[in-house]
Amino acid sequence: MASGALFPGLATVSDAAPLASRALELIREIYPICRSITGNGVRETLALVARSLPLEIFEVPSGTPVFDWEVPLEWNIRDAYIADSAGRRVVDFKRHNLHVMSYSVPVRARMTLAELRPHLFSMPDHPDWIPYRTSYYRENWGFCVAHRDLERMQDGEYEAVIDSELRPGSLTYAECRIPGEGHEEFVVYTHVCHPSLCNDNATGVAVAAVLAGALMRQQPRLSYRFVFGPGTIGSITWLARNRDLASRIRAGLVVGLLGDPAPLTYKRSRRGNTEVDRIGASVVRSLDPRSRVVDFSPYGYDERQFCSPGFDLPVGRLTRSSNDGYREYHTSADNLDLVTHEAIAQSLLAAALILGRVDSNRRYRNLSANCEPRLGKRGLFRSVGGRSPGELEHALLWMLNQSDGLHGINDISAISDLPVATLGAAAQALVAAGLLQEIVEPSASSERANVRAAGYVNRDN
Amino acid sequence: MASGALFPGLATVSDAAPLASRALELIREIYPICRSITGNGVRETLALVARSLPLEIFEVPSGTPVFDWEVPLEWNIRDAYIADSAGRRVVDFKRHNLHVMSYSVPVRARMTLAELRPHLFSMPDHPDWIPYRTSYYRENWGFCVAHRDLERMQDGEYEAVIDSELRPGSLTYAECRIPGEGHEEFVVYTHVCHPSLCNDNATGVAVAAVLAGALMRQQPRLSYRFVFGPGTIGSITWLARNRDLASRIRAGLVVGLLGDPAPLTYKRSRRGNTEVDRIGASVVRSLDPRSRVVDFSPYGYDERQFCSPGFDLPVGRLTRSSNDGYREYHTSADNLDLVTHEAIAQSLLAAALILGRVDSNRRYRNLSANCEPRLGKRGLFRSVGGRSPGELEHALLWMLNQSDGLHGINDISAISDLPVATLGAAAQALVAAGLLQEIVEPSASSERANVRAAGYVNRDN
Amino acid sequence: MASGALFPGLATVSDAAPLASRALELIREIYPICRSITGNGVRETLALVARSLPLEIFEVPSGTPVFDWEVPLEWNIRDAYIADSAGRRVVDFKRHNLHVMSYSVPVRARMTLAELRPHLFSMPDHPDWIPYRTSYYRENWGFCVAHRDLERMQDGEYEAVIDSELRPGSLTYAECRIPGEGHEEFVVYTHVCHPSLCNDNATGVAVAAVLAGALMRQQPRLSYRFVFGPGTIGSITWLARNRDLASRIRAGLVVGLLGDPAPLTYKRSRRGNTEVDRIGASVVRSLDPRSRVVDFSPYGYDERQFCSPGFDLPVGRLTRSSNDGYREYHTSADNLDLVTHEAIAQSLLAAALILGRVDSNRRYRNLSANCEPRLGKRGLFRSVGGRSPGELEHALLWMLNQSDGLHGINDISAISDLPVATLGAAAQALVAAGLLQEIVEPSASSERANVRAAGYVNRDN
Repeated sequence: MASGALFPGLATVSDAAPLASRALELIREIYPICRSITGNGVRETLALVARSLPLEIFEVPSGTPVFDWEVPLEWNIRDAYIADSAGRRVVDFKRHNLHVMSYSVPVRARMTLAELRPHLFSMPDHPDWIPYRTSYYRENWGFCVAHRDLERMQDGEYEAVIDSELRPGSLTYAECRIPGEGHEEFVVYTHVCHPSLCNDNATGVAVAAVLAGALMRQQPRLSYRFVFGPGTIGSITWLARNRDLASRIRAGLVVGLLGDPAPLTYKRSRRGNTEVDRIGASVVRSLDPRSRVVDFSPYGYDERQFCSPGFDLPVGRLTRSSNDGYREYHTSADNLDLVTHEAIAQSLLAAALILGRVDSNRRYRNLSANCEPRLGKRGLFRSVGGRSPGELEHALLWMLNQSDGLHGINDISAISDLPVATLGAAAQALVAAGLLQEIVEPSASSERANVRAAGYVNRDN
Repeated sequence: MASGALFPGLATVSDAAPLASRALELIREIYPICRSITGNGVRETLALVARSLPLEIFEVPSGTPVFDWEVPLEWNIRDAYIADSAGRRVVDFKRHNLHVMSYSVPVRARMTLAELRPHLFSMPDHPDWIPYRTSYYRENWGFCVAHRDLERMQDGEYEAVIDSELRPGSLTYAECRIPGEGHEEFVVYTHVCHPSLCNDNATGVAVAAVLAGALMRQQPRLSYRFVFGPGTIGSITWLARNRDLASRIRAGLVVGLLGDPAPLTYKRSRRGNTEVDRIGASVVRSLDPRSRVVDFSPYGYDERQFCSPGFDLPVGRLTRSSNDGYREYHTSADNLDLVTHEAIAQSLLAAALILGRVDSNRRYRNLSANCEPRLGKRGLFRSVGGRSPGELEHALLWMLNQSDGLHGINDISAISDLPVATLGAAAQALVAAGLLQEIVEPSASSERANVRAAGYVNRDN
Repeated sequence: MASGALFPGLATVSDAAPLASRALELIREIYPICRSITGNGVRETLALVARSLPLEIFEVPSGTPVFDWEVPLEWNIRDAYIADSAGRRVVDFKRHNLHVMSYSVPVRARMTLAELRPHLFSMPDHPDWIPYRTSYYRENWGFCVAHRDLERMQDGEYEAVIDSELRPGSLTYAECRIPGEGHEEFVVYTHVCHPSLCNDNATGVAVAAVLAGALMRQQPRLSYRFVFGPGTIGSITWLARNRDLASRIRAGLVVGLLGDPAPLTYKRSRRGNTEVDRIGASVVRSLDPRSRVVDFSPYGYDERQFCSPGFDLPVGRLTRSSNDGYREYHTSADNLDLVTHEAIAQSLLAAALILGRVDSNRRYRNLSANCEPRLGKRGLFRSVGGRSPGELEHALLWMLNQSDGLHGINDISAISDLPVATLGAAAQALVAAGLLQEIVEPSASSERANVRAAGYVNRDN
């Protein structure tokens, strides 16, 4: 399987190893940062990404209405701890940023353990792990602690300090735009709002960054936007600010949780069988027979917003595990030990192949559609007949026969069992010969028509 | 599996036992009556039903044109017998009303056995059973006898007497109407034209009557019409008189033959995958793995008229056996011994569940369809994040995501694997929060569009 | 399985034996002729066919533009040989016409074996077989020889003589037209351009000729055109000259390679599930469980032109082997020994059944579509009720219920599991009774609508 023209050297997992190493480096740098849905943690993370990738940073003021929501107050934190009566910090934000519930309001109080208790979160089932908790939209404060440590806390007075700020500021997100030949867009979205959780989602940020970096050096056909923003409120904000773009979105991919040992998982868009769905399913299955292709559901990551019924965009999702599909999910055990170079490399390759195949999925119109055109006089067919034609000659026939405006090269590959590269070469030769013309208008409407006409069983529309 | 709101206490076969007992009582009362497609037997039967159910009785005069047909002359019978030369009644209508071919014209004649023979019907394969024969549309007369009795008849002279009347009168049918919130209608049709055949169709009449009685005590969403009329000419007459209603028929169910030991059988409508078809198939399968779901065919009961190509209505059929699918079909062996309380209870439950699920299959429009609305600020989502959402929260997301006007709650249940009750609760909460609006216009056209767009393989249209 | 009304006596392979014998006779006569895409070999072949079949012969002048092509110069050959220095003919066209590459330009030259070598074609893998080579569209000349003979040729001087002519003339094709009742057309196309290759395609020519002869004696409903023309350029020329006919083509079948021992193969049209595709697949499967039904691909025979995207006609293909699917393909081993009477008979029967089923696939409109019409008063239903209806009565109900303009009798047969003959009889009775009306307008558009509406999964449009 060729990678398509988009990432020319990237066809196997070992080809992806150097990029995976770069991603792992970035993961190690951004993992320790305390991120949330707003605040300086996001800015620091994006700054690290921006060292090697041109990023446009957007700051959207608190209070800005975005559909049914509004951009929240900005949250920042300097320090937090629980000290015992001897002044010893028994829980210390500086040791692990998961210790503080995200968006905790400032607190500085002395209280008994009983008074403190409702603000303490732990996991009795995993007594050594710190859970991850948030309270973005209701003012609250809390500490997350290993259950074993919680059990060790004696009755008595404690000092609880959260040195945070919750006030008007802005929500930060970044875009890396890579212009292509046409004006159709491919959107890659990854969430940057999680603090020190490594698989979820330092891996998504790093893979997206490294992939964008590699793509910068290419000449893509589609235009690409890699969006690094907070989960939920970030994609809602982005969609609210980019409504006009929707009709130009040829496809999209939400990426995240790309380093754990679980097999690759492609989640279909709400429409269920769009171009990116067919390609995404085919790519993950080709890389690993254990791969999972799952139907859309409205729980998950930012695909929820792209696939809300008002947008209903052809946006799928690439993860390994997802949500609570792994034990370490949303705990301190989701750390650097959980993610492997091998998994990162395979995930990176899968994303590259999906982008590559959509990018190369050119559609053409046969300009000589009544009967076959005469290929021989154009030097496209062997002159001595009687023998069976070769693969390229078959590819020429397939491209001519199926170029009715509905089928992209990848679709024709699926029908004909011919490699995309061969069909691409055939298409190029036919364009040069004046027999095919590329179709460049946005495919959203024809794609929908195609899906319907093709009889794809699409449970959603 | 919940029964839906329509029959709140009716979720299991044992819940249905008291209603089944009531149905069996009614079966025992109406079984002995000599019914035909017109006449006093139908009126007596409907009078017994009307003791516990408000019925509107319609009398349609003989000769009334109804599509390609006209309402026939009315038939009544007082007595009939064959007496031997000694005056002994060897065949006696008073012993079993199947002894007379239905719609036999009056006769009073002496004749030899050879002359009588063409008017005698028997079943050599089942020598103890009396067959059931009719001659509605050609003037004729006949006696149906057990083959063993026929063989005992000696040569000699007999007196054949049929004291019947065939003259202008009317065709009788009845409706029980239960108004609902909206103006979409659900039609239940059962045939009342068979004389002393118990499964076919004292059971259908009794189950429909008891079900209608139970529904009277509820507040249905749809409007219901339970129609008790003769087979074929009855439904043709009803459709001819209710043509304007057709566009308001959300769904319908022909019921009959509900007491024999065969497994439940749901027969799809001509369109094959309408709402009631999806629900009917799912209900019978959930009640018994041996249940049969069969494709539409133009032979059977009154579904033939509802599903004629000029109407093509979403009307399915619920039976156990059907037509000649059981040995006792159209013979005196289709008697009270054939039907069981257990079968009646299960059939009654199946019908109740089908009605309940269609009734509860509300459709909504998402009023905040661009991205997810913010559920937390409406108290619909837990405030502390980081943990996985519960079933109700998933249900809220599913209802919002799929409420595009095409999917009813039952469809969303099938897609999401969430219980209808949970989705219904979610929908109610979302309506209260102003996020969903129920769609109340008739669904006939959108249902058709839905079926088509959903790519359902529908062999019929 | 009945053959339909088109070939009344043709229902089993043994029924087809006499026609197969006639086809084999014709095969033996035309096999030795040196045909090409133009020239006297085609004319001689058609003259032999015309002895028993009225043929209209068309001569299209060289240079005539036909879509992207033009009719080539006409090629004829009198003699050709390679003689050694002793004057002995070591390769002699008179011994086997495959020895000369088709369309070889005239040559008369002395040259060394080394000089001759680029003009010699052989098959090292099959050293006793002469390959078949052509150079229609680039001026060239060549000899095809058994590899064993080639290896025997000693160094030294040879005389190469090809006494051919390549000059303006015409392309020859023939049509046998059999007018039917309506103006919908069925096209059968077979290629006549191959020299002494027996399976490919003396068998196709002979089977088409014998079938047309048998059809001449019948009264078909559709109009038939049997076209005998060269491959590729022939069907392109025919389509260019018959563009107006396209909208009237109800169905078509390309036939060829019908005598080898491989199982029957039906190749679907580009649209994949048109009427002839459903019927063709069903027929070949019914005749032999080993039969193959293959999807359309743009490589093959003249179906390529009928199924080019500009025409996209419902034209399938019937062969046994196809193209390089058998060892002897395009070699001197494709001779009279390869084809069997048994295979010819089965192929002939398959073609006859396909034509017969399309011909009998009448569509009707129910003129009494609201409820069932009353069949009894028209003498179409038994008068004594109570018993189950017979097959004809079921057929009446099915025809009425499904005659919505979309379903032909064969489609209704597939849905109902009733024989076509019974449904046909029912249809005739219903037409006589004024209840059905045959639909006679071309079905192209309604067929497309049907395919779509029926939810057929059609990968091509």
